[in-house]
Amino acid sequence: MTNNKKAIVYVRLKEGVLDPQGVTIHKALSQMGYNEFVSVRTGRFFELEIEANGNDIDKRLDEVCSKLLANPVIESYTVEKH
Amino acid sequence: MTNNKKAIVYVRLKEGVLDPQGVTIHKALSQMGYNEFVSVRTGRFFELEIEANGNDIDKRLDEVCSKLLANPVIESYTVEKH
Repeated sequence: MTNNKKAIVYVRLKEGVLDPQGVTIHKALSQMGYNEFVSVRTGRFFELEIEANGNDIDKRLDEVCSKLLANPVIESYTVEKH
Repeated sequence: MTNNKKAIVYVRLKEGVLDPQGVTIHKALSQMGYNEFVSVRTGRFFELEIEANGNDIDKRLDEVCSKLLANPVIESYTVEKH
């Protein structure tokens, strides 16, 4: 049995980019009486299981993020490895 | 100026619940030649800014998660406070 590695990629909209989903959630919270919430920003994350014997994982993870998981024009990403 | 608090809510599908988006991404990775990825699971997160003087924040955050941010039938959530 191999001990696969795990990486989590967090993708969020860059600062200054409007987040309509967050705005909608914020409005819904206010309407529900949760007025202590000042702002809501949304993001996605991806839990990737990676074969332990893969080479160049950092470089390839970075490629995967910018090519497939995030849109670098409006989104930024961070990678957390476990 | 108040020092607002920040909380991040991570929502993911419960184990055993099929994640079609993750499956699709995994297939795409294979087709692009990234064969070292064994599985992909997707999730969402929400960054909430909360007024510093709010009371009962933990309880209210929990309500917000189960009522609005997550579907407790198929999703679980974790809250990270800053």
